[in-house]
Amino acid sequence: MLVTKHQNTIEAAVKANHERAFYSQYPEHPKAYGEDAHAKGVQSYQQLLNKPFKQLLQTGETGWTGEEVSPYTQEVLGVTYPSFPVDDLVKKAITAGQQWGKTPVGERAAVLTETLERIKDYFFDIANATMHTTGQSFMMSFQASGPHANDRALEAIATGYHELQRYPPQVAWEKPMGKFSIKLQKTFRAIPKGVGLVIGCSTFPVWNTLPGVYADLITGNPVIVKPHPRAILPIAIAVSAIQQVLQDNGYDPALCQLAADSSDHLITKELSEHPDVKLIDYTGGSTFGNYIESLPGKTVFTEKAGVNSVLLDSVKDLDAVIQNLAFSVSLYSGQMCTAPQNFFIPETGVRTDNGVVSFNDVVQKFRDAVVGLVNNPKMGAGTLGAVQNEGTLTRAREAQQLGGKVILAGTEVANDEFSKARVFAPTILEVSSADNNIYEKELFGPVVLIIKTKDTPHTIQLARQMARKHGAITCAAYTTDAAVKEKIADEMNSVFTPVSFNLTGFIWVNQHAAFSDFHVTGGNPAGNASFTNQEFIVKRFVWVGNRELIE
Amino acid sequence: MLVTKHQNTIEAAVKANHERAFYSQYPEHPKAYGEDAHAKGVQSYQQLLNKPFKQLLQTGETGWTGEEVSPYTQEVLGVTYPSFPVDDLVKKAITAGQQWGKTPVGERAAVLTETLERIKDYFFDIANATMHTTGQSFMMSFQASGPHANDRALEAIATGYHELQRYPPQVAWEKPMGKFSIKLQKTFRAIPKGVGLVIGCSTFPVWNTLPGVYADLITGNPVIVKPHPRAILPIAIAVSAIQQVLQDNGYDPALCQLAADSSDHLITKELSEHPDVKLIDYTGGSTFGNYIESLPGKTVFTEKAGVNSVLLDSVKDLDAVIQNLAFSVSLYSGQMCTAPQNFFIPETGVRTDNGVVSFNDVVQKFRDAVVGLVNNPKMGAGTLGAVQNEGTLTRAREAQQLGGKVILAGTEVANDEFSKARVFAPTILEVSSADNNIYEKELFGPVVLIIKTKDTPHTIQLARQMARKHGAITCAAYTTDAAVKEKIADEMNSVFTPVSFNLTGFIWVNQHAAFSDFHVTGGNPAGNASFTNQEFIVKRFVWVGNRELIE
Repeated sequence: MLVTKHQNTIEAAVKANHERAFYSQYPEHPKAYGEDAHAKGVQSYQQLLNKPFKQLLQTGETGWTGEEVSPYTQEVLGVTYPSFPVDDLVKKAITAGQQWGKTPVGERAAVLTETLERIKDYFFDIANATMHTTGQSFMMSFQASGPHANDRALEAIATGYHELQRYPPQVAWEKPMGKFSIKLQKTFRAIPKGVGLVIGCSTFPVWNTLPGVYADLITGNPVIVKPHPRAILPIAIAVSAIQQVLQDNGYDPALCQLAADSSDHLITKELSEHPDVKLIDYTGGSTFGNYIESLPGKTVFTEKAGVNSVLLDSVKDLDAVIQNLAFSVSLYSGQMCTAPQNFFIPETGVRTDNGVVSFNDVVQKFRDAVVGLVNNPKMGAGTLGAVQNEGTLTRAREAQQLGGKVILAGTEVANDEFSKARVFAPTILEVSSADNNIYEKELFGPVVLIIKTKDTPHTIQLARQMARKHGAITCAAYTTDAAVKEKIADEMNSVFTPVSFNLTGFIWVNQHAAFSDFHVTGGNPAGNASFTNQEFIVKRFVWVGNRELIE
Repeated sequence: MLVTKHQNTIEAAVKANHERAFYSQYPEHPKAYGEDAHAKGVQSYQQLLNKPFKQLLQTGETGWTGEEVSPYTQEVLGVTYPSFPVDDLVKKAITAGQQWGKTPVGERAAVLTETLERIKDYFFDIANATMHTTGQSFMMSFQASGPHANDRALEAIATGYHELQRYPPQVAWEKPMGKFSIKLQKTFRAIPKGVGLVIGCSTFPVWNTLPGVYADLITGNPVIVKPHPRAILPIAIAVSAIQQVLQDNGYDPALCQLAADSSDHLITKELSEHPDVKLIDYTGGSTFGNYIESLPGKTVFTEKAGVNSVLLDSVKDLDAVIQNLAFSVSLYSGQMCTAPQNFFIPETGVRTDNGVVSFNDVVQKFRDAVVGLVNNPKMGAGTLGAVQNEGTLTRAREAQQLGGKVILAGTEVANDEFSKARVFAPTILEVSSADNNIYEKELFGPVVLIIKTKDTPHTIQLARQMARKHGAITCAAYTTDAAVKEKIADEMNSVFTPVSFNLTGFIWVNQHAAFSDFHVTGGNPAGNASFTNQEFIVKRFVWVGNRELIE
């Protein structure tokens, strides 16, 4: 019945994946979900606070843990989550996987699509939980953890649905041998690799988690979700919704388990090194990511740190460009993995339709645009959101001591709604191209570096080298010259970095759209995987063919 | 023009890949290539001997090397090959790759298909060269290094052709925003990963090499072929044919270079560890294979050692089964990676349509069938071929001292045509299931172990454990019981091992057919790659998407 219900959705998603034009199953505007949904969501979120989270269909916990603090109120959420021994989680996953691995992919796809529909019912709860764990604004919390995450999940379901039906389940093979022929009945099975583990991060606890979860599940693997201890609630709600649908439809809810832990007793390594954990999806810092990638006998999918560049060569309308970039760097205080950090601007300035604007004038305009945005009472606090943790805030505070020339010193910004919110405006530093000790690393959070280059070829050379050595997830380039555009595309693409050209208005380099944009290419040090190309799916199962002689 | 010429071939191959029914582009019977082709091939092969191999379009060699010895005549072939510094090979590959990486995949596919047509012209030269380097019989040499290898190559071309056209090269993306919409022009590029290296083995120097070569080339990567120093000539002929076609059609022949070396100065590690070598295909022993898999920053495809099992439960016609298995173990003296080694037989015997045959009687029948085959003047020497190297021969000679009960002691077998041929019949040992120190490893060459088990569940348990721990490429199972069949399939598939059921007559477990059978699953220790699933192709390039705002 679920198959009938969701077949059109799944097929449309498969088509969208291939065509890569605009497509979305879950509208991104909150109002699409009802006028009172927002208010109800706030209410039901508040009812979750200061008590154990008992919505999970997991039993046998050995304790309860929880340490989330709202970046907006500085108060503890007071939600606790059951904790389980690693072996117990893995054993339950293995048991649950037995039946699931043999469930036809069409049935799996339908059940999983139904779980997305159930998650949709909790979009506003998840949004509030995201806001008060990550520090994202309400709008970003809603979109990233709600419709955008669900769209990415559906994208993974659809890719799996397509890949697993690539070969016929059985085929008659007949080899002519002259006077007779040999006949074999062949069967092809996509055998799941084993228990999956998805390790979440503190800034995008749902968006970065669901693709791995659904990629594991659609390919027949059970999955264990290990959230960041400071951002559990949003994904706990999603996991409980998934478990409800699984149980309602006769599947073992242990197919998708939550493995909450605490920062003083992290279980990530124990889970990752468990011999029965075969698949690991990871989002987070590079040091731990490199450790994950080094584990023998595991198939791993990582998104790590990168340093994203902006290349300014020539523009039609400088003000429109500057506005766009000021928003890009301010959005969620530079805590998006797609946020630009290094701005390469030639010392000769930027050509515009109204003549060349000098380097210093471009820098001044950019500074003014950031100042104008963050101090705009209607826009500032909402754009910046809050800084997720103290560590990032400390780094942002100390950024002016990194070296170079301080163009704009980051300062606290008031949030009218939440007086204790941890809000900090970007610091902008100007450095020379020789200061690679300053700009050759990720400065996670609200820190922007402007690097003065000789000319655009020099800009390209530096941006390419940065992406090759340190990884990059995005690159924004501005040029009105077709040859330069081609050169930038070629050079950045050669280090597996996508380029967004000439973005102005209501589209920013930070945004990656499901069904169209690959998120992370997987080809440079920023990560080895991509939402959602074929590799993200086909590495999770193994094609095995059996044959039998037909006499 | 080549596109027009080969379009049907390529599209038919894509279709065959998906459908997995019987398909072959290159007929496997020598007679299909003309009545005098064989004789001409012997002649032109002989003209290659005792001189430098100058057919390669590679210049700047720093020396000449060659040490091949015929397993049939024990004479040196006397062919020498140019040798090049590793850096020189890699630099030339990078240069050649620049243009090739941007060549449309349809054009690449056509040129590569044309190279297969050129290789076809040398099938008989390659067959004779294969025979006198590997020790394969003429028929196996012809089929494996000729039509079967070409079919596998075409399979890789077709899979690449399909995968690289998975997404549109460009698409208009339009996001409705209420009163207006945002329009982006998106382009999707499949960026090649970098220089490929294919490391060949001494037993199947063409068959195991071409898939990696063509997978690299179709995905836009240049490739360096590093053959085993004792089996260079067959693949040197193929590489020179590829180079000719590339040059004739205006491409850089350095896209596919031969990197011959000698056993006293191997360059495999230097090549593998070169920072610009990004892709490595490897066939050979597990120790070196594990080293290759451990190299950081490389995408690797391995086929290593495995231990293949035969599971005997119940049969219709025991004699037909025994004949089939006797041939399987004798074919090329067990030097195929698909050859069975461990025979699991219950102590209670094997059920047949004519009653139960006792364990001892089954063993005796198997022994007699092997003796009958190897001593058959029309069949014996031709089936066994020759042992490729002295090491394998020594191991085979010493096999009776491994322990257990010697059922058949391997002996030299005369080859009427080549009196000095290194021909050795299989040794058969009977061991108990407790003798895992004997049977828990690959005994490459003509050695067969019969393991007495308690019953079929015990058989399955042991065979599964072997495959899980030591890898397996094939598994032959005989049962007339549907439930047992399902159990064997489930258990062996769970350790990513394919099962061939109830083969008798002119089809053997050793055979894997292009366009239908996946060769090696990639899921157990016998190797991490598979000819040719999606993973074999998609890991060689990276999808990168660029976007530009349309105003």
